[in-house]
Amino acid sequence: MNLLFIGDIVGKPGRKAVEELLPQVRKSYAVDFVIANAENAAGGNGLTRDIAHELLGRGIDVLTMGNHTWDKREILDFIDSEPKLLRPANYPVGTPGRGSAIFTLPNGKHLAVANYCGRIFMNPLECPFQHVGRLIESLRGKADYLFIDFHAEATSEKIAFGWHVNGRATAVVGTHTHVQTADERILPAGTAYISDVGMTGPRDGVLGVKKELVLNKFITQLPVRFETATGPIQMNAVLITLGLQGKAEKIERINIIKEV
Amino acid sequence: MNLLFIGDIVGKPGRKAVEELLPQVRKSYAVDFVIANAENAAGGNGLTRDIAHELLGRGIDVLTMGNHTWDKREILDFIDSEPKLLRPANYPVGTPGRGSAIFTLPNGKHLAVANYCGRIFMNPLECPFQHVGRLIESLRGKADYLFIDFHAEATSEKIAFGWHVNGRATAVVGTHTHVQTADERILPAGTAYISDVGMTGPRDGVLGVKKELVLNKFITQLPVRFETATGPIQMNAVLITLGLQGKAEKIERINIIKEV
Amino acid sequence: MNLLFIGDIVGKPGRKAVEELLPQVRKSYAVDFVIANAENAAGGNGLTRDIAHELLGRGIDVLTMGNHTWDKREILDFIDSEPKLLRPANYPVGTPGRGSAIFTLPNGKHLAVANYCGRIFMNPLECPFQHVGRLIESLRGKADYLFIDFHAEATSEKIAFGWHVNGRATAVVGTHTHVQTADERILPAGTAYISDVGMTGPRDGVLGVKKELVLNKFITQLPVRFETATGPIQMNAVLITLGLQGKAEKIERINIIKEV
Amino acid sequence: MNLLFIGDIVGKPGRKAVEELLPQVRKSYAVDFVIANAENAAGGNGLTRDIAHELLGRGIDVLTMGNHTWDKREILDFIDSEPKLLRPANYPVGTPGRGSAIFTLPNGKHLAVANYCGRIFMNPLECPFQHVGRLIESLRGKADYLFIDFHAEATSEKIAFGWHVNGRATAVVGTHTHVQTADERILPAGTAYISDVGMTGPRDGVLGVKKELVLNKFITQLPVRFETATGPIQMNAVLITLGLQGKAEKIERINIIKEV
Ligand SMILES: [Fe+2]
Ligand SMILES: [Fe+2]
Ligand SMILES: [Fe+2]
Ligand SMILES: [Fe+2]
Ligand SMILES: [Fe+2]
Ligand SMILES: [Fe+2]
Ligand SMILES: [Fe+2]
Ligand SMILES: [Fe+2]
Repeated sequence: MNLLFIGDIVGKPGRKAVEELLPQVRKSYAVDFVIANAENAAGGNGLTRDIAHELLGRGIDVLTMGNHTWDKREILDFIDSEPKLLRPANYPVGTPGRGSAIFTLPNGKHLAVANYCGRIFMNPLECPFQHVGRLIESLRGKADYLFIDFHAEATSEKIAFGWHVNGRATAVVGTHTHVQTADERILPAGTAYISDVGMTGPRDGVLGVKKELVLNKFITQLPVRFETATGPIQMNAVLITLGLQGKAEKIERINIIKEV
Repeated sequence: MNLLFIGDIVGKPGRKAVEELLPQVRKSYAVDFVIANAENAAGGNGLTRDIAHELLGRGIDVLTMGNHTWDKREILDFIDSEPKLLRPANYPVGTPGRGSAIFTLPNGKHLAVANYCGRIFMNPLECPFQHVGRLIESLRGKADYLFIDFHAEATSEKIAFGWHVNGRATAVVGTHTHVQTADERILPAGTAYISDVGMTGPRDGVLGVKKELVLNKFITQLPVRFETATGPIQMNAVLITLGLQGKAEKIERINIIKEV
Repeated sequence: MNLLFIGDIVGKPGRKAVEELLPQVRKSYAVDFVIANAENAAGGNGLTRDIAHELLGRGIDVLTMGNHTWDKREILDFIDSEPKLLRPANYPVGTPGRGSAIFTLPNGKHLAVANYCGRIFMNPLECPFQHVGRLIESLRGKADYLFIDFHAEATSEKIAFGWHVNGRATAVVGTHTHVQTADERILPAGTAYISDVGMTGPRDGVLGVKKELVLNKFITQLPVRFETATGPIQMNAVLITLGLQGKAEKIERINIIKEV
Repeated sequence: MNLLFIGDIVGKPGRKAVEELLPQVRKSYAVDFVIANAENAAGGNGLTRDIAHELLGRGIDVLTMGNHTWDKREILDFIDSEPKLLRPANYPVGTPGRGSAIFTLPNGKHLAVANYCGRIFMNPLECPFQHVGRLIESLRGKADYLFIDFHAEATSEKIAFGWHVNGRATAVVGTHTHVQTADERILPAGTAYISDVGMTGPRDGVLGVKKELVLNKFITQLPVRFETATGPIQMNAVLITLGLQGKAEKIERINIIKEV
């Protein structure tokens, strides 16, 4: 079984990348199941119902989110009724939506998917290290594999989280920095790990935003209204091959660029 | 001319990686000049005179630093008299040491090297975007190439900085996160760019620190005394091939792992 | 000469407090000159032209700002033509508006007023400690008194700034936390100091915002649209009596509450 | 019943202030029970066994802590066996020590004391808003009064916390900024509140530290070894008069300065 995880889809260019590149990726890599981070899918921030449906209709099986989950308020209207949409599990008890769910793979095995946010340089949520311990307990006997999107800023927290679930999760892939890292590996006890999968969207901006606007902000320190960049698009993803006993067999980085 | 830049050298394992791997890398890649980030070279934090000499004696031509520059206080005793050692240029006017310098390459050309710190999630220094503009002005007619180690946390600031000097610097390589990124490229106007070169040191820790200690800190929130990790070592570096008119021709990631 | 400084005016309730309480305060305290922080005067964030005129028309002589200076974009249209409006002086060179100016007091003496932002837990601006040294130099022979609104979060930075200009400025009053502190004093070399003057606006909210909304945000970690609180209003201010040779003679806290 | 709460005791000067000023304060204010924040009591950071005993021997009944709880590692050796010592209750489950306890007042009534840390600009702990709700539940029928030391940086979080337990706690006093605020009041439902009680220690430093050292750090951005300031000492405290049905009747600020 080959799992594809697509890094943060940013705005229209990101959705276009999914539309134009995902079909070929599915084929070339013999993909069986697709997860994608959609926290920036709507205009760069948040997710609307229409865009969630668009992405789920284009061959993505599960959507994960991050610190931008709530940027479009309408998500509160549909997050509870969309079982294929996950938000970080370490939001306070009682938060709308769910942080993990179990899905059935084409081979009949059960794949748990969970989404977490880090806390270093980010909002104060529940401890993801402690929360994931409880999650893993609760999944016993219910899921064959556990895939985690760990949405965080600091490399220390991401790597530590990888070690924390080494041998207990099938894969931990980082998101949020929008830059793909080159440290993908299978940790000694069988967990696939990468610090950040990267971004799916416009290649020549700054994290998906028009570079002139971001530069202007850094230089002047004045507030700037951000717009999604244009130009060539990229899809950043990883392919994870599932192995025996809940372990990962392989992790491979994918980075496809397309001129537009 | 081939320039090698080595990512943050961490402690004894990092120095061992330099000792054991640099000679072969120099040969295989036909390296002409070596720059390395040494902010963590002494026991994981800072730099001592002895370790500076050790590194400069092993074939490194210039040492750059970062937010850990001053962790070993003795650096204040020798930073002013060590012309091959740079600290971030955007420290306040009057700070000991220098932030940039011009070196002569084997082919007689002049290479300016500069070191900057970012400000997002970091200490409040002078604006690196404005400072580098003045630096570039001042280098006119004095240097053929400009190489910049941009030591920063946030990918937005790093990428924006790359675009900021696109066509005005030969290369901008990020450091500080200790994780190599896979976004190396030549920007449209000829500047080699990578968000982070990564780390040279123990592979199986967390940014070079024993993983058990870091995990303990994240889980308990109690202070923990950090120790450098042991086990396999890695060298993370990039090779930059200089081109015409101050531009870069090529940038290539290097990641060598050695069991010990 | 008695100088009145009014702490952050928040929204309509804050402007109402100015309208209803300032006339009586002017009389009771024999006020000669009024400065007020207006960074939250327009709906809780920023300043519009109309509200600037309203406040200047109600007996305020100078308006200072802070990190919310640019929240209402229209300020860019009038900040350059409004000599009685100051924004933090340590924004980058080239920022619209001015960070300090000299005003003539009723007794013919010249009062320099300056506005600065701190950097701890705030945006990365120029070093206020270094900037104010240059400002003080430049004011020699031009101003008899120097009043500074130091807009900052951390008490350490505020107190250190007070000591930094002790004997060189007439007064340093902190703003930004919206809570009046009880540490007003004349520092040994004659500088009046208080860590925070407090807020002028609704008393029973959280920094001027409806308490239910803020509580909701802290508890749920979901984004919440803030609204200015209603109910009793307060005016927080300090009265500074100017002395000889640019020193302050007295600093007195003012806190008036009015049921509405 | 009169409760005295003493703001962060800093180093030797702070302990001297307790020794020299507490006896007279007890008498003048008819104090029945004394709580003090001791997170900086040992050399400016942390608490040793000897100093805990010294403070408890000088008429303090309960010690609370904060983000500096663990700065002196020996606290781990005695925190579990010292029932009069509290650390923030929202550290992870399993943290040594306790976050709240019930004490018997001279009149036989039971006083619960709790210590919390805020999370804005601080470490990522459990949500204090949610934690305190559970604590209040658990105290039903066991305690007549609930006193809370809320150790936090941001005024928004402190004020929101006060409103959160308005009518459910007897008093919420803020600590951590080392500057006494002038916003003490009885909230509408009977909870005594002040954003910060202030500091007990050397008056002419920066939060208790020698001002030259702090200034040097702000200006040079180089690391500086901090030392406790000398000169006049101050005791910052509040007196809370307990009322009926778990409410507070009165809150009064105390600020005593003594030349040495
Ligand atoms: Fe994102
Ligand atoms: Fe994100
Ligand atoms: Fe480093
Ligand atoms: Fe660093
Ligand atoms: Fe404000
Ligand atoms: Fe502010
Ligand atoms: Fe403290
Ligand atoms: Fe503290």
